[in-house]
Amino acid sequence: MTVNLPLPQKDQLKPIKGFQMGIAQAGIKKANRKDLLVMTLTPGSQVAGVFTLNRFCAAPVQVCREHLALDGAQGEIRALVVNTGNANAGTGEQGMQHALETCVALARDLNLNPEQILPFSTGVILEPLPIEKIIAALPAAVADLGEDHWLDAAEAIMTTDTQAKAASMTVQTPLGAVTLTGICKGAGMIHPNMATMLGFIATDAGFAPGLLSGLTQTVADQSFNAITIDGDTSTNDSFIIMATGQSPVRIQSMDDPSYQLVRDALTALARKLAQMIVRDGEGATKFITIEVVGGKTESECRLVAEAVAHSPLVKTAFFASDPNLGRILAAIGYAGITDLDVNHVQMWLGDVWVAKDGGRNPDYQEADGQRVMQAAEITVKIDLGRGSAQQTMWTCDLSHDYVSINADYRS
Amino acid sequence: MTVNLPLPQKDQLKPIKGFQMGIAQAGIKKANRKDLLVMTLTPGSQVAGVFTLNRFCAAPVQVCREHLALDGAQGEIRALVVNTGNANAGTGEQGMQHALETCVALARDLNLNPEQILPFSTGVILEPLPIEKIIAALPAAVADLGEDHWLDAAEAIMTTDTQAKAASMTVQTPLGAVTLTGICKGAGMIHPNMATMLGFIATDAGFAPGLLSGLTQTVADQSFNAITIDGDTSTNDSFIIMATGQSPVRIQSMDDPSYQLVRDALTALARKLAQMIVRDGEGATKFITIEVVGGKTESECRLVAEAVAHSPLVKTAFFASDPNLGRILAAIGYAGITDLDVNHVQMWLGDVWVAKDGGRNPDYQEADGQRVMQAAEITVKIDLGRGSAQQTMWTCDLSHDYVSINADYRS
Repeated sequence: MTVNLPLPQKDQLKPIKGFQMGIAQAGIKKANRKDLLVMTLTPGSQVAGVFTLNRFCAAPVQVCREHLALDGAQGEIRALVVNTGNANAGTGEQGMQHALETCVALARDLNLNPEQILPFSTGVILEPLPIEKIIAALPAAVADLGEDHWLDAAEAIMTTDTQAKAASMTVQTPLGAVTLTGICKGAGMIHPNMATMLGFIATDAGFAPGLLSGLTQTVADQSFNAITIDGDTSTNDSFIIMATGQSPVRIQSMDDPSYQLVRDALTALARKLAQMIVRDGEGATKFITIEVVGGKTESECRLVAEAVAHSPLVKTAFFASDPNLGRILAAIGYAGITDLDVNHVQMWLGDVWVAKDGGRNPDYQEADGQRVMQAAEITVKIDLGRGSAQQTMWTCDLSHDYVSINADYRS
Repeated sequence: MTVNLPLPQKDQLKPIKGFQMGIAQAGIKKANRKDLLVMTLTPGSQVAGVFTLNRFCAAPVQVCREHLALDGAQGEIRALVVNTGNANAGTGEQGMQHALETCVALARDLNLNPEQILPFSTGVILEPLPIEKIIAALPAAVADLGEDHWLDAAEAIMTTDTQAKAASMTVQTPLGAVTLTGICKGAGMIHPNMATMLGFIATDAGFAPGLLSGLTQTVADQSFNAITIDGDTSTNDSFIIMATGQSPVRIQSMDDPSYQLVRDALTALARKLAQMIVRDGEGATKFITIEVVGGKTESECRLVAEAVAHSPLVKTAFFASDPNLGRILAAIGYAGITDLDVNHVQMWLGDVWVAKDGGRNPDYQEADGQRVMQAAEITVKIDLGRGSAQQTMWTCDLSHDYVSINADYRS
């Protein structure tokens, strides 16, 4: 089940001028399933990415990093290729060869250099990529290229996702309108830096050289790096922003008044997409927002938010709609702030003040906690009482279905 | 269910001269249940403890620390009192009062000073301790004091444990024989520093002043601090070693030949008790040993062992007996060794070499992995290939029953 996650509607996903998608069925893990996506960008486009920090990062992640580093020198990035059903991770030298062969094959079909291609894989780790199936299906994906294939693209990158994830947005700037559309996938092995997750956003804005890379990191930190489902940082996570520059809006610098507008729109879209992953979290029945305020630094707020969001005991209590809120205090206590004075800590569950000055609020009634716990969307607010920094994370509960899904995933 | 955890037999639990236990039913959370334990020590005994690092540590933990710091000044520690059914944590100033009142009441019954008592609580967090029930039941526990009550004591400290945990051992030293007996409790909220767990070991050895405290930390690090069930460090964890000095063995210094023998025996007993907690881990169907070798430092080996032991994806794969071993590589990769060269990493599942030089071992057959995964006890060995440090941890799988137990715990 999902938590307040409507199905994306095809007519609400706006095409981005200069950006095309083509889908094919390569039969990588299962037959008769969209599992291959090719995306192409018009000449002059810009691409930036943020990738997993996992040291066992997948071969395609390594190739993406290399090709983005060469961007410009060997011709700009002009195409992306994504397969599901196999992560091409923990596959050693052969995995690298396979990722490169995928680029070579697509480059031939599109008349580009292999270095102009970014490859992505998602699925099972430690199994060889069935490279022949992918190469054989690439021409069909290329033949399918079109601007209006967002929904098909979102479906083609799904693994344990129960539904496709996509969203669109338009923002007006002094220089004109900018359109943004994005897709993402992910439901388990989700944790900052980053989730088992792929996210792609295309926009028709243009950027002066060097701007997009920092912007992509900023957007990622406020969206995909602020969600956790199970605390497992995957080998394949990638978040990509692609800017075709086909609208009248070209942003020259961070001081440009349009910069902030477009950055905020990208952040809002990325956050919406990231939250869709949580709403479709493996086995999720609750969507939980953890707001930590009153910290000395953002990073210590993040430590606390992660500890709470990550605790199996907190997550099973949410699943049970049981206000067993001492478990949240315990998580705050072990989050790693060694000089935390718990006597200054306050906690609210929704609008209910539960913990006051480090202990149970004398006015707290179990029935009030129970009422809030019944809701499908719950906010936990924690005030550390030692500064003005804050950080918000999003997570879901831990249910029987999480265990079922992950115990059965490969069978 | 439990994993290879036989019930303790009363006649195998050896009395420790100078150490007595008394049990009562205080009705703290449920009626007709042993939930109060008093332990007394003969004059001249020594006591040392290791406690949770959780900043939201329970009131009794704070009182224990204070009373151990006063040890000697106000008279030595002579008694311990443990209640289950309520953790007296997240209870603020009132909780501290309750912990102290418990000491005052027991001191009156035993003709001691309150500072000679160590209090312990375990159970639900954030609810007021029913202090009247405890005080009312103390005389019954005191009346019950005897040397032969180890099994009853082990039963009296259980919470979500499905069975009592106790063990005994005798070690011969050049100075004579030393007897050690211990009990512990814990099944969830289990993670280093420390688990939701109480552990008490009594021995008739004696120690020169100052020796027992460091020894207790050493023993804890090799036992209770090397297990994890769900990664939640509790508010109440306490591990206590009590030495009555009633045997002929009195250890004068760390250079004493008997020191190492007694230390090793204490470590072996504590490890056995700690492993009992994992074997009775909430919902556990598998007992898993994570051996990390070839690290630069013990602490980096520990990071890797914890990441693997803690990963819900790894743990659900063990539950499913599914050799989805890429999940282990992913956990190694995100454990936090930022300069890890994965090309030097090897991994074995039992006797099967799965990952070779960072990739899938070409000789690895899925059927071999499957065979090992079927066993109730599984060892994962990871060689980081960058040094000679090593660390071992013990954990269990993540099953449907874990979710059930923790979703239903309070109802």
